[in-house]
Amino acid sequence: MLERSLVVSAPGKVILHGEHAVVHGKVALAVALDLRTFLRLRPGGGGSVTVRLPGVGVEASWDTPRLRALRSGCPGPPPPRPGTAAVRRGPSVEQLDTLREFAGITAESSAPESLATLAFLYMCLAISAKYGDVPSVDIIVWSELPTGAGLGSSAAYSVCLAAALLTACGAIACPLAEGESTARWTEEELSLINSWAFQGERVIHGNPSGVDNAVGTWGMCVFAEMSLVASRVPTLRILLTNTKVPRSTKVLVAGVKDKILKFPAIMNPVLDSINAISQECQSVLEAMPGNPSPEYYPVLEELFDINQHHLNVMGVGHPSLDRLCHVTASHGLHSKLTGAGGGGCGITLLRPDTSPLAVEAAKRDLCACGFECWETNIGAPGVTLHSSSSLKADVLHALSMS
Amino acid sequence: MLERSLVVSAPGKVILHGEHAVVHGKVALAVALDLRTFLRLRPGGGGSVTVRLPGVGVEASWDTPRLRALRSGCPGPPPPRPGTAAVRRGPSVEQLDTLREFAGITAESSAPESLATLAFLYMCLAISAKYGDVPSVDIIVWSELPTGAGLGSSAAYSVCLAAALLTACGAIACPLAEGESTARWTEEELSLINSWAFQGERVIHGNPSGVDNAVGTWGMCVFAEMSLVASRVPTLRILLTNTKVPRSTKVLVAGVKDKILKFPAIMNPVLDSINAISQECQSVLEAMPGNPSPEYYPVLEELFDINQHHLNVMGVGHPSLDRLCHVTASHGLHSKLTGAGGGGCGITLLRPDTSPLAVEAAKRDLCACGFECWETNIGAPGVTLHSSSSLKADVLHALSMS
Repeated sequence: MLERSLVVSAPGKVILHGEHAVVHGKVALAVALDLRTFLRLRPGGGGSVTVRLPGVGVEASWDTPRLRALRSGCPGPPPPRPGTAAVRRGPSVEQLDTLREFAGITAESSAPESLATLAFLYMCLAISAKYGDVPSVDIIVWSELPTGAGLGSSAAYSVCLAAALLTACGAIACPLAEGESTARWTEEELSLINSWAFQGERVIHGNPSGVDNAVGTWGMCVFAEMSLVASRVPTLRILLTNTKVPRSTKVLVAGVKDKILKFPAIMNPVLDSINAISQECQSVLEAMPGNPSPEYYPVLEELFDINQHHLNVMGVGHPSLDRLCHVTASHGLHSKLTGAGGGGCGITLLRPDTSPLAVEAAKRDLCACGFECWETNIGAPGVTLHSSSSLKADVLHALSMS
Repeated sequence: MLERSLVVSAPGKVILHGEHAVVHGKVALAVALDLRTFLRLRPGGGGSVTVRLPGVGVEASWDTPRLRALRSGCPGPPPPRPGTAAVRRGPSVEQLDTLREFAGITAESSAPESLATLAFLYMCLAISAKYGDVPSVDIIVWSELPTGAGLGSSAAYSVCLAAALLTACGAIACPLAEGESTARWTEEELSLINSWAFQGERVIHGNPSGVDNAVGTWGMCVFAEMSLVASRVPTLRILLTNTKVPRSTKVLVAGVKDKILKFPAIMNPVLDSINAISQECQSVLEAMPGNPSPEYYPVLEELFDINQHHLNVMGVGHPSLDRLCHVTASHGLHSKLTGAGGGGCGITLLRPDTSPLAVEAAKRDLCACGFECWETNIGAPGVTLHSSSSLKADVLHALSMS
């Protein structure tokens, strides 16, 4: 049983190449984004489980006996097979209805706070059912990631929950030795974390691809037809820009499908070209040392430019994204949309020798368009266990530890 | 022997789809542009051949006996085989040197006036050598086409010269009956005109593709690996815009080749997609009636947009062309570059129901960018013989007939 506090974190994700093409059986290149979700789990005093998610306004507490009674209605999914990224059978409609009723969530609610609460309850109960009671704990989650921006914030949340709950009930070890600042789990434990995180994603998204939770768990990932192919990436500086233009991923995906059906001879080669871009990018990243010199960058930039044109061909561009690309190009920087497109986020590559002044100028111009802009990295580590002394002040403060 | 004046005209060309891809064995869709070159040939009085090309500042006159003496050094090319677009053997370096010396043109000069004079002399002498003397004539040529803009102005000139000279020396008929306003030649005669026009293009360009003179001769043409495949097109309203940004076709073609060698798996599918765009566009055009209704247009517009992105992928875009596309898009119109790219010309499709006000507004905004803009048609007839009464006032005036 857990005797001390845990802090775990998991990264968000951006898709470098292959968004949309992945729906049609092509490779996608998803990488971890160094904007992270942090979870602190503290052994609780009073026979209850408490969850606070200040980012979405959730503060809830349930008595352990009530949760135990509920558990019988919520058996866990079958154990994951080693080497598969996903557990096949997920939460049933009846299970989720029971949990909604328990938590006082209306059937129609798809508000982030409702889905986050539901995912927590499902994971807590299913993990308890399988590995023994989750003890009395007090959990707080805080994220650097914006929600609903296609940056994998729900997966980072699910990965943190899976890691913390599995550790708390002893299903996986707590690998952080005295005096270490961070630690990671074994490959086998990571597979288990990923499987349970996928269950959380299922509660939140219904039919998730499994890419986001895999990136949150392992860091960089390359996916071909949804199976993990490779995982190695140097740290690259980027600007991540949220155009804040809302869009429906479902509508965008359907539009691409329609276009492929309308012009198969025109569109299928575009998917092939995107596939080749992902592969080319992957091999460049694998050839790059951890601290890459500028010579590697022109190819990465050219691949960004080509893919951005291809995504426009697929009809998932947007005037806001054109503006983003135009503004960054005026500062000598190369950008593409990332994720579903039609607005949402864009990613801009920064070279090691891009001057801070140029970056600041680009950020200022992007903000002047009404966009939100983060200077961050890709190639961040996957789910990580932290000593509290290794955390930055803003994280400590957000987790009410300072 | 010719007893009356002739007026012939030939259209310029734009490439609808397949520029650059045609260099790599793909289909190109070239169509006649209703900006024409006009040539008036008048039986001369004084035993001389006179040429005036006011557009490039040429005014030259040569005695018939001097030309006849020169002719022995300038045997014609072999007769064209029916059904082939090109005569295999063209003017030799020695022949062209002789003609340059005769006309007082320095060896290095590639000025339009030098090349136009050289092409005239070569065609005049070679046609005389083969079909009998070109009689004393007085020729004036005037064009609606800008030169050096990739719109086939040199081919339209060569086609007019071939048609007029072949008619003057009796190698082909003069099919304009009394009272008719326009007439065209038989298919066999058009082949002969095209073959000789190709010789003129060789003098001017060295190694022309043969596309421009074929369009000037026949009107619409579809080319696959340089052979004529189909020829039918409805009349479509367009804006033709010259960005006036100078560029080197040779450098652009080499850049595309380099990119294909650098990223074959990424770029070859793009060529395949462009090929499919040309084929799709061709079948839409063939399905369209002569006076098409608006329902045909969305596909043509979508193909323009897709190909413009592909041309950007190939690296032949230019900020001026981006601006052109952006300006016309703001008026609901769809544009792509046409020809070599890197500046040069863009083509904008107008629907039958595009309001004159919208067209005027778009033209005004394009001119405000420093561009030159023509409202014209594609799908114009090929080389045509005109009665003087059928000509517009500005053409009559330019040919000194009013």
